[in-house]
Amino acid sequence: MQKYISKEHIVAMEKQNRVHFVNSLGGFKSVVLVGTVDNAGNTNLAVFSSLIHIGANPALMALILRPSPPERDTLNNLLETGFYTINHINEDIYRKAHQTSARYDKDVSEFDETGLTPIYKQEFQAPFVAESFVQIGLTFKEKIDIKINNTIMVIGEITEVFVPQNCMSKDGFLDIEKANTITCSGLDSYHTTKRLDRLSYAKPGKEITSLISDYFE
Amino acid sequence: MQKYISKEHIVAMEKQNRVHFVNSLGGFKSVVLVGTVDNAGNTNLAVFSSLIHIGANPALMALILRPSPPERDTLNNLLETGFYTINHINEDIYRKAHQTSARYDKDVSEFDETGLTPIYKQEFQAPFVAESFVQIGLTFKEKIDIKINNTIMVIGEITEVFVPQNCMSKDGFLDIEKANTITCSGLDSYHTTKRLDRLSYAKPGKEITSLISDYFE
Repeated sequence: MQKYISKEHIVAMEKQNRVHFVNSLGGFKSVVLVGTVDNAGNTNLAVFSSLIHIGANPALMALILRPSPPERDTLNNLLETGFYTINHINEDIYRKAHQTSARYDKDVSEFDETGLTPIYKQEFQAPFVAESFVQIGLTFKEKIDIKINNTIMVIGEITEVFVPQNCMSKDGFLDIEKANTITCSGLDSYHTTKRLDRLSYAKPGKEITSLISDYFE
Repeated sequence: MQKYISKEHIVAMEKQNRVHFVNSLGGFKSVVLVGTVDNAGNTNLAVFSSLIHIGANPALMALILRPSPPERDTLNNLLETGFYTINHINEDIYRKAHQTSARYDKDVSEFDETGLTPIYKQEFQAPFVAESFVQIGLTFKEKIDIKINNTIMVIGEITEVFVPQNCMSKDGFLDIEKANTITCSGLDSYHTTKRLDRLSYAKPGKEITSLISDYFE
């Protein structure tokens, strides 16, 4: 049976129920760990489910951030240094990743608190998560204020990528399911995935076919 | 073995390979059908994987759009009427959903071409997809130009929601896996999900526990 929920119902919900409900409506989301460090060397690690692809050339990604803790430390650090990392989450680390959402004081590193390992690579000035299989280094490009609800969109350019060699398909597709990347829904639900298919480029009047991924070894 | 790919490698990739690669890096994404109609009554349906949660109060979602076809028709229609629908995709309709990404002429409706069914509900002025189990009606609120790569962010407020009654948890969480919602990665890879767990609200020094979802019937 289908249930109808209007704007008036949403507004009347108890606050935490509304947050759960509206977050769930967005569908399955990318869930990643964002690694930063301030100029004094204090590291920070925070889980985000607001990552979005902006474009491939230049290679741009955006995050939506709230100006309150714990997201504020990530924002301050990436603005201070100009660098941050995005690390995919796998089944082995999702509980630790979730724990980074706790409101730790600024001088406490979520790496220390959760046991995840900061690692510096290729002279990039922000820490990657060693336990992550897909690690991305970004340079801050632009901050856009979303005034309608006082949130912030941060756009960065991808400058370093580390991925498992055997998950790279010859057509450029990266098989993140093979790389054990997981997804989330709502605020707190974590999911593995199972591929249905890869589909060919759609054209009017032409039947879609299945793509076979051919990987580098 | 881990493979290192720098900005220089990405820039040097063949164009379509780069599009596949960079899209894959964003992780698993929400994939939805956006339904619109122009003032003359011509319907449009387009698949998007750029949906993002902006806030719960007011209940806001954003889409990133490109100013080129086929996304241009969606943008024009929702600006013309002020209304659009977001419809979750399930395993039964994902191939039809993918087909809506073909570049049909403006006077051709993707509903007709794919066999998906437009349905009008609650006097809302944009068509929902009858075959979708999670249907959301939105009112256009704001358009933000992302100048760095000439894309557009459209923010809308959720005013109508239709969901399966037995997927609503008593704490507000909507179990979209139970509602058969699927996810995508890259440009063309579709996936079902399997829940690992729902986790409790994280606090410093407190162990995370599993949440049990208690559904309405």
